[in-house]
Order: sequence, then C-alpha cells, then structure tokens
Amino acid sequence: MKVLVLGAGQLARMMSLAGTPLNLKVSAYDVNSDTIVDPVTQQQLGTGLAQAIANADVITSEFEHIPYPVQELCQHSGKFLPNSTAIKAGGDRRQEKQLLDKAGVANAAYKIVVTEQDFYQAIEQLGLPLVLKSALAGYDGKGQWRLKTQADAPAVWADIQQFMAGADHTLPQAIVAEQFVRFDREVSLVGARNQAGDMVVYPLTENHHVSGVLAVSLALPGQQQLQQQAKQMFEAVASALDYVGVLALEFFQVGDKLLVNEIAPRVHNSGHWTQQGADTCQFENHLRAVCGLPLGSTALVRPTLMVNILGEDHVSPAVLSLPSCHLHWYGKGKRPGRKMGHINLSASSTSELAQRFDQLRQHLPEQEFPELDVVAARLKQLQ
Amino acid sequence: MKVLVLGAGQLARMMSLAGTPLNLKVSAYDVNSDTIVDPVTQQQLGTGLAQAIANADVITSEFEHIPYPVQELCQHSGKFLPNSTAIKAGGDRRQEKQLLDKAGVANAAYKIVVTEQDFYQAIEQLGLPLVLKSALAGYDGKGQWRLKTQADAPAVWADIQQFMAGADHTLPQAIVAEQFVRFDREVSLVGARNQAGDMVVYPLTENHHVSGVLAVSLALPGQQQLQQQAKQMFEAVASALDYVGVLALEFFQVGDKLLVNEIAPRVHNSGHWTQQGADTCQFENHLRAVCGLPLGSTALVRPTLMVNILGEDHVSPAVLSLPSCHLHWYGKGKRPGRKMGHINLSASSTSELAQRFDQLRQHLPEQEFPELDVVAARLKQLQ
Repeated sequence: MKVLVLGAGQLARMMSLAGTPLNLKVSAYDVNSDTIVDPVTQQQLGTGLAQAIANADVITSEFEHIPYPVQELCQHSGKFLPNSTAIKAGGDRRQEKQLLDKAGVANAAYKIVVTEQDFYQAIEQLGLPLVLKSALAGYDGKGQWRLKTQADAPAVWADIQQFMAGADHTLPQAIVAEQFVRFDREVSLVGARNQAGDMVVYPLTENHHVSGVLAVSLALPGQQQLQQQAKQMFEAVASALDYVGVLALEFFQVGDKLLVNEIAPRVHNSGHWTQQGADTCQFENHLRAVCGLPLGSTALVRPTLMVNILGEDHVSPAVLSLPSCHLHWYGKGKRPGRKMGHINLSASSTSELAQRFDQLRQHLPEQEFPELDVVAARLKQLQ
Repeated sequence: MKVLVLGAGQLARMMSLAGTPLNLKVSAYDVNSDTIVDPVTQQQLGTGLAQAIANADVITSEFEHIPYPVQELCQHSGKFLPNSTAIKAGGDRRQEKQLLDKAGVANAAYKIVVTEQDFYQAIEQLGLPLVLKSALAGYDGKGQWRLKTQADAPAVWADIQQFMAGADHTLPQAIVAEQFVRFDREVSLVGARNQAGDMVVYPLTENHHVSGVLAVSLALPGQQQLQQQAKQMFEAVASALDYVGVLALEFFQVGDKLLVNEIAPRVHNSGHWTQQGADTCQFENHLRAVCGLPLGSTALVRPTLMVNILGEDHVSPAVLSLPSCHLHWYGKGKRPGRKMGHINLSASSTSELAQRFDQLRQHLPEQEFPELDVVAARLKQLQ
C-alpha cells in the first residue's frame, strides 16, 4: 500500500521506517517546499501534490498545522485519515476545547479572547494566574503567555496584540485564556483507533518539559487507576472524532485526577519510547490503523525512557556502549532548540533504569541536556 | 557516514532500516544489474560502482558470492570490512575448511575432490554416508549431494561432473566431501567483532530447515555450556580472520559437542529474530562494527522465534493481531521458494511462546509452511 504523509519531518521519517517491513511505501508532502519527498532520504520524488494524492491508497498527517486548502484537497479524495475535523481540532485550541466539552472530558476552565474586553473579562471570570495560548500555530511553548498579577495585564495584552498582528491572517486568530492549573505532574497517553472503532492505548507516560518543550518521557509499569482514567478519556475523545490512527492526549495530573491539556491528532514525541519499550511502536500502529490492518499490542515490554536531543547534532558515541541505549537521529540540519533526535533507554526494572540513567547522564552535558538531574531524582523516587 | 553494501537484497534493506536512526546512509551495489541502488526503494542512484566506492566511508557486504574483481576493487579502497579474505572464506568451502583447521575449531572430516580418483579416495578415507558440497556458489541446499551406498557412487559422480561442467569457469571449481555427521540438531551463533577486537555474541539459535533452507529459528534462554563452547569457537574464527562486522557460525550439535558446519561472513537469516528479541539487532550491530561505533548489547530481551516466508507474498492479516507478532516483508517479487519475508514472534517465557506459536500456526497453511508442527512439538518439549 502507498501512504502519503502530510509533513516530511521526523515523524514521517519514523513512519516510513516502521512501515517498510509491512511493505507500506511512505512518501511525504513537504509543506514548505510544496514537493513530494522520500521522508527518509528527503529526495524529491518528482510528483506534485495532486498526483501524489491520486497515487496514494491512504493519506495521513504528521502534524496539525497543515494549510486548510491542502486538508480540504485530501479530505475530498476520501482517503484522508484521521479526518480533517480531527486535524483541525488539534491545530486550533478553540475547536479542541469545544471537542473536549462535547466529549465530556475534564479540562481547564477557559474563555476565548479576541478583544481587550474579552481579555479583562477572562481575568475576572477565571482569576489569576492565567495561561493564555494562541488558538492557532502555537506549539512547543511558542505563542503562550502566563499572567500572574493584575499589574502585568497591560504589558501581556500589548505582547499578545503584537503576536496577533504578526500572525497569518488567512484564518481568524484568537487566544484561549485558561485557568492556571496547579498540577502535580504532566502525563500523556498515546493510543490508536481503527476504522472498526477498536482502540488500544499505551501505558501512561510521565513527561518533563524544559521551556515548554518536551525533554524526557518516562514509561514505567503500574499506575493502574490513572491508566484507566486516561484510557476512558482517550476513548471519549477518539470516538467523538470518529478518529482513525494514533492520537495523543496530554494531561495535567492534579491529585488523582487528570485534566486534558492538549490533544495531538498524530504520533507524538511522548510516544517515541515505544520504539524500544512497547510491543508495537506508535509509528507502526498508526500505519496499521490508517491502512486497515489489525492494531498491534501496546504492552510495555520493558521500563523505558526517552531523552530528546535539542539543537545538537552530536552526542558522545559512548552512549551507544550502554546496554539498551538506542539513538534515533532525524537527519536534520542543526538549529538552536530544534528537535534533532532522541535517545531511548530501557531496563528490566525501574531501579535498573534509574541506574542506567545515571550512567547515561554522565555522557550528556548539563548545558545541552538540562533538568536530567530532576528526572534522575524522580526515577529514584519511583523505583 | 556513508555505507556501501555489496548486494542489494533483504539484508542490505534491513541494514538500511537499522542504520537510518544512526544517521548512517546505506546504498547498495546490485551485482546483477551492476548499478548502485537504494536498498529500500530499489531506486537507482545514478552512480557507478567506482564512484560509489569513492563516495563511501565504509564498504561491506551482504553475501559472500561476490565476483572476485569487485571484491578486489573494494579491498584496494582500504574501506572494505570485513576483509576480502573473510568474504572468500565464506564463499569457498575449501578456504572455509582451511580456516577452521587453522583456527583449531572442530568440524567434520573432509577431503577436497576434483578428479574421479579424489572422489573414490574420499569414500575410502571418510566412509559412507558422505556429504558432497560444491566449493563455490552452493547455498540453501543447492550444489549438494548425499552419497549413501557404494552402488550409488557412479550416478552421484556423473551428477557432480555435470554440475561442475555447468559452473562458472572463471574460478577453479571443486567439491568438498565431508564425513556425514549424525547430528542431534542444528544451531547457529551470530556475533560481532569490531576493529579493536571486542566481540559480542547473541544467544545460540536452534534452526529447523526444510529441503536445506532455513524455515524456523528459535532463540530461547538457557544452554549456558553450549553457549560458552560456541562463543569460544566464534572468537577463534573471528580472530583468525581479523574479522570486523557480524559473522555467523552454523553448527551441528552431537551430544554436548558442537562442530562448525558453515561460516557466513555477514548478517544471517538465523539472526533475524534479533530485530524483536535482542537488545540490539544484528543489522545495527553489523553497521556499528564496520563504522567504528561501540557494539550494542546482544542480550536476549524475550524468547523469540522466527518463521521464514518462502515463495509467498501474502499471509493472513490476522497474524498481525497476535501479540508480539511482527511481519518483515522484503519487497521482492514472488518466485517459488524465494525468501520473501519473515515473521518474528516473542513472548515473556518459553511456555507462552509455545502457546503463541500454536495461535500463529493456525494462520499459516501447512502447504506453504511445512514442519511447523515439528517446531511446535519441540517448543513444548523445551518449555
């Protein structure tokens, strides 16, 4: 089968690597250059988007910020999975919030802000501190503000106005103001749903961010009550969207309750650990779902963690000499803060994983990999 | 790093898939068409062999039957690993036997046969039954004869003469006559050696053949005494060859002793289970070795077995719904008996593997997958 992926980054690349053994041929649409490429070699394949859509058996996506005209073209072909509604809900926080409410899934109280009046009403209704997020095109901590005191309000509003003025005006931009959630930790659930409505979910992953960007994910055994709660929320959202493919839900955990923070209608950075730690990796399961193949087991094979490599195109080769340590480079050019690759580390138990992580940390300079000490302490607490 | 593989079949393909996450770019030399191709897409890359050799950082091989002039060209570049001596020893049973004797590694008694006189002397010296194997170009059961009685000798010799007459005359052909070994089972050891002389070996694999072609490999825990014996033999052979890369040794087990039957200077079909069952798969470890990267752990993660798919380009999709069951297609055109793909099946224990294998067998028709009942019985015996 031929699969066309909208987006030609690392997620399309890893889909291609996972799909090849199933004889699935993955090509990718590079939105920036408007060309069809091999997502592994980045070689242009010489067809345009219309031809690629015609050639494909299935069309899917690696990210949610796809120009609406492209989404419409794909939706019209009848081959687009997940559907355009799901992709849009992931790419627009207004639609995301509506979806969560419709599915009856807990999330932070919010208000849509377009005018200055909305902004001050949000402060009044939701209280401070307030988190303000761009409805469109905001990800990895970009287009986000935190308002702590009433005195800061004018400056934050000026900043928001400037951001809105610079935004793409083909779509009406807005801000979603959210009540600040004093969460205990951030977790995520990656799962898959097929056309028959069957659903499978991976174990809940604990995520550690630095400046709003994922740094480390931990996939450990246990947490049955939370896992069950997350699974129900996943099923509610995926069913409401008639979703097909891999979908990720990011949560805030407050006590023993989960609130959905974000949904991502695609394979997700917090699911990269599945390449070594789960029975079937998220990339293979996404392809299985959209290609109408049976979903694969999502069981945790071994406690596994993932460390993102940000802005660096080199790590010490000694990393490879550690047992159960796997490097995944994305073959991209170096840019500050850019997701360049990740490291997966596995072990037979959480305590062994904590030991191995201490070994791994010795090869990862703190300047390039901040907060690993926090994760190390956390692992020791969990073992 | 850029790696050129001599041979563009499934082994080069799986090397490419394993190398991409390490940012290793694998291209392949298709010996039949004399072109350089992407081993995954089979797309021609537009360079000739000489240019590809010049472009490559490292050159390696996926099979041992490479024309000597090509081997010489690669050897001259100073980038060829393993060295040409090792490849030739794998491709010529005369050199293989000499190597085993030199390394002091147990193997079946033998005699080189070129003339009719040699043939009858071999019968006299080694006794009957006798196994006769073409020194060159014999693999997967081709170019092999079994002589059981003196009365059959003239007919077998006539057949051998006919085979030798039809063989490629650029190299002196011969037959290696071997004493028939009444073995209890066939096992193999896959391992890797790097330039510093470090060596790692995977767990011993039990192999089941049908008509001389590998059908099923079993990688199970235990067998420490045999593992140790096989490891020592591996180290003796790999060191004698100053070998760099993955090397496979096939053994006959007689009682608690191993005799080397064959060596394969490459990644090996009996090591395909490592993709799901070992910490680092053989394809990644081969690339790590030839690229000067640290060798990865070869630990068994879970009991795993591999079933070859021969001559078929389709299996029931239900196979994918079984837990820990992974399909690996090679993207090749269908031909009777051709290695088209393989299935890896894992479990948390040997008894669970036996149960899962019974489920898997229900989806694999006996006509296309003979002898799986024998393997099922064997698994129950081992659990």
